[in-house]
Amino acid sequence: MEEMADARDPIEELITSFNELNSSTIEELDEEPSPLEFMRFVARNTPFVIRNGAKDWVATKTWSAQYLQEALKGHHVNVAVTPFGNADAPTVHSDGAHAGGEHVFAKPHEEDQPFENFIDYLTNQELDPSFSGSEVRYAQTQNDNLRHEYVSLFAQTLKSIPFARIALQKEPDAINMWIGNSRSVTALHRDNYENIYVQIAGQKHFVLLPPLCQPCINEQELRPASYVRRGDQLVLDMEDGDSVPFATWDPDRPEANSTKYSALVSPMRVTLDPGDMLYLPAMWYHKVSQSCSPEGVCIAVNYWYDMDFSGPLYPLTSFVRSMNGRIA
Amino acid sequence: MEEMADARDPIEELITSFNELNSSTIEELDEEPSPLEFMRFVARNTPFVIRNGAKDWVATKTWSAQYLQEALKGHHVNVAVTPFGNADAPTVHSDGAHAGGEHVFAKPHEEDQPFENFIDYLTNQELDPSFSGSEVRYAQTQNDNLRHEYVSLFAQTLKSIPFARIALQKEPDAINMWIGNSRSVTALHRDNYENIYVQIAGQKHFVLLPPLCQPCINEQELRPASYVRRGDQLVLDMEDGDSVPFATWDPDRPEANSTKYSALVSPMRVTLDPGDMLYLPAMWYHKVSQSCSPEGVCIAVNYWYDMDFSGPLYPLTSFVRSMNGRIA
Ligand SMILES: O=C(O)CCC(=O)C(=O)O
Ligand SMILES: O=C(O)CCC(=O)C(=O)O
Repeated sequence: MEEMADARDPIEELITSFNELNSSTIEELDEEPSPLEFMRFVARNTPFVIRNGAKDWVATKTWSAQYLQEALKGHHVNVAVTPFGNADAPTVHSDGAHAGGEHVFAKPHEEDQPFENFIDYLTNQELDPSFSGSEVRYAQTQNDNLRHEYVSLFAQTLKSIPFARIALQKEPDAINMWIGNSRSVTALHRDNYENIYVQIAGQKHFVLLPPLCQPCINEQELRPASYVRRGDQLVLDMEDGDSVPFATWDPDRPEANSTKYSALVSPMRVTLDPGDMLYLPAMWYHKVSQSCSPEGVCIAVNYWYDMDFSGPLYPLTSFVRSMNGRIA
Repeated sequence: MEEMADARDPIEELITSFNELNSSTIEELDEEPSPLEFMRFVARNTPFVIRNGAKDWVATKTWSAQYLQEALKGHHVNVAVTPFGNADAPTVHSDGAHAGGEHVFAKPHEEDQPFENFIDYLTNQELDPSFSGSEVRYAQTQNDNLRHEYVSLFAQTLKSIPFARIALQKEPDAINMWIGNSRSVTALHRDNYENIYVQIAGQKHFVLLPPLCQPCINEQELRPASYVRRGDQLVLDMEDGDSVPFATWDPDRPEANSTKYSALVSPMRVTLDPGDMLYLPAMWYHKVSQSCSPEGVCIAVNYWYDMDFSGPLYPLTSFVRSMNGRIA
């Protein structure tokens, strides 16, 4: 047995056997699952998309750039500002004096902006070839903002997703609004949440990897840095805090920053159109990019439900992480 | 990070973190779960027992030794015969010429016996202090025998367990009858089945360990051997077949055959009384011993539903197995 066990790298075996038993094409439903049907997906920790699952939401029907500008007239919202659309992303620090050439974890510059200006910026940057602004703006606070900053719009969505609320027996921990344009990309990462992601306007393009692909994503300890405005420029300032373990492999540039396991992964790709709902299971890696509606925005909301840490999945996923790099 | 990862044995970490997040006391329900409630347990791969869940089955109400003897008069049934109640169990081979002192995988001698004699043997051995037979007999074929050998009794049970059938969307792969006395013990092992185990008469005592405890159970490659009758004796004959990877640690004798991880495990113990139903999730290790009804038998039936091999649990469980022994 020892001999057999040594014959093949156990991590390679893990990923290939997962691939053999699971499709890398997402399951598509054309109507809401029942709570039981949903629970079957939770049990398998397997994504699905409900095409047109939120087609009848008031939000899906009414949230245009113009409508939102009316609705939030006079409001200020928190905006993540970066030079390249790289909020919370591994980024090569270009300043030789500090961390030149080093991959750091780049946090956005955050500032409050009048909502109307924010939307104008997004849409002009997207649609007007002569637009001169180069920085990238994204409303993406991930702090339950739909029930706080954007609370006046909340009633046009749902308080909770019925099949998820009934199956998981809990209310969402956070409901987040995401407003950006095609310049923003959310880097590959994972969250300890069951996630129901609802596209309202424009498209989101998800690349998904299962939790056991941790050995493929080249996690590195990255020192934290934040963008700050210095004159006309956004520059990265190193921070003192603890370094952040973060994926440095990008499934869209598979040759760069790869590990010996990266080539084994079969990314699952899905594009959400307005009204589509994605179930993104807890601990799946996701990279998200976006395309705009004809009026030049991309709008989504998502529901985060605390994952269940009991059962074997969470400790086994941590185990894969701690074994990675220790294979003889 | 590498430094941190090396600080503690990842397998130790895996088992202790599982223990912190999961109770080692079984959940007790006092009525059948709905399919959704059941699916939540399947999702967490977590056992439960329904006290009196099968109290109203005709089987529970009517299957006495005497009733079964009437019902199966003239029938022969397959009986597993062993010297110590050790069917399919790791056993020290005592014959010096062949495998003396070696742990082998002992299969029972199997023979057809008239059902009435079989029951008389069980009950007399259990109740009559002057009974002279020493061999142990157990009807335990595990080959869907309730729908074959014992088909005349099948209608007094259920065709399927409704909450499991609806949740898992499949019919049972096998329905098994188990008839024995307190001399038989089923050694610690695991099955790739979702198992609904129903106690009819007497008691079963389960010791349960979660799948990720594989490093605790001291799996060894055991050469197969079978008991054969030679004169008055049951002797073990070695077989030519492939050796069998099998648990050699016994949670009831924790000092013997232990691994460095055995002491970390928190076995879950549950005794089933007549009418109780146990959900034993796929891939949980179980050791099962038994006590008799006042008339000297122990009777149970169980429903095996194929487990779902998709999702992360199966490959992750295999990964733990292949990593065990490879920790630097
Ligand atoms: O929409 C995005 O840009 C990222 C979404 C995301 O990371 C999430 O929903 O967890
Ligand atoms: O009842 C027994 O002796 C063993 C039961 C068992 O191993 C099973 O149901 O899988």
